[in-house]
Amino acid sequence: MTKLTTVKKFRQIKPEIRILGIDDSVFIPRTKGKADIVGVVYRGGQWLDGIMHTKIEIDGLDATQKIAKMIKNSPHYKQIRVVMLDGMTFAGFNIVDIKELFQKTGLPVITVTREKPNFEDIKKALKNLPQYKKRWKIMKNAGETFKIQTREGEEPVYVQVAGISETDAEKILKKTSTRSNIPEALRVAHIIASGLAPQKEKE
Amino acid sequence: MTKLTTVKKFRQIKPEIRILGIDDSVFIPRTKGKADIVGVVYRGGQWLDGIMHTKIEIDGLDATQKIAKMIKNSPHYKQIRVVMLDGMTFAGFNIVDIKELFQKTGLPVITVTREKPNFEDIKKALKNLPQYKKRWKIMKNAGETFKIQTREGEEPVYVQVAGISETDAEKILKKTSTRSNIPEALRVAHIIASGLAPQKEKE
Repeated sequence: MTKLTTVKKFRQIKPEIRILGIDDSVFIPRTKGKADIVGVVYRGGQWLDGIMHTKIEIDGLDATQKIAKMIKNSPHYKQIRVVMLDGMTFAGFNIVDIKELFQKTGLPVITVTREKPNFEDIKKALKNLPQYKKRWKIMKNAGETFKIQTREGEEPVYVQVAGISETDAEKILKKTSTRSNIPEALRVAHIIASGLAPQKEKE
Repeated sequence: MTKLTTVKKFRQIKPEIRILGIDDSVFIPRTKGKADIVGVVYRGGQWLDGIMHTKIEIDGLDATQKIAKMIKNSPHYKQIRVVMLDGMTFAGFNIVDIKELFQKTGLPVITVTREKPNFEDIKKALKNLPQYKKRWKIMKNAGETFKIQTREGEEPVYVQVAGISETDAEKILKKTSTRSNIPEALRVAHIIASGLAPQKEKE
């Protein structure tokens, strides 16, 4: 594999740029087993083009590899321009190495969270898990956190990036946050992933 | 239960009217087991508000009851104004009684298909299944099929209705078919339901 050393440059960001938004489904924390990951292909902030899914281990170490495989096996792969993640940790503390995900897929990656990540708290939590050092290294590998104001008069979001400049990430986030301060691909990925959780039987 | 004898009248159809679009997931025909049903709450033809799901028996007789229960248990129930179904048969020949679904939920029901249903072919197929007469009765209970031109210069769709006039159904279909000749709630329900099918493992 040729290592991608530069960031992807976006000369023009079309309103219908295809974004893949990724989130995880609800699961019972600190249990054994797998959790669903849902990927939603959105045309800018406008409409849904497709969906993909995979499973990763709760508190496991396979998120990066499984998500890369899900993306590359998708019929939408060639059309997607950017991957957005609802944070870096899925299914508990199964952390995505965003630089490696960029290397594996050739697609820039942007993590988006509503709260500023508190790395001291995360560090403490990671210490309770096997392979703490490896996890912490993946976490640190994501680099600096940027604050981005996606919509006027609304709460900002916090992002980390791989394979894309902060400036381009900001432009894409602003263009695709059409219904809330979160890019539409991620807002919808969250609704779908949480809506698919097993439902309680009620009569 | 008070029987609803009249149709719901829509004095005004807001562009953001909440529509529930329902479709089934891919399954292996004529096998035993259950298939997933996905319901998508859409604001008119504009954006996704929520999702719900249930399971029904392949070639079973529980579609009406399970879908009614899914709708009534959803936190979106009170906001939904119309239910749209991708045809009348789900998970093989598990047929929805649209008049009964209207009675159970109080929500008007519109079935939408791209092809004109061929009832002679359906009748023949139903004869291979247990409780043929019951199934055929449910099918006939849906009444007349109407042809509706949702978008200028595109293929028409075919609908059957319960609890709503043909005129109101036509208005709602035209207003919500924003990306194709199919109302957005159904287009997206189809993408989500088929995208959730188990994926082949590829390396």
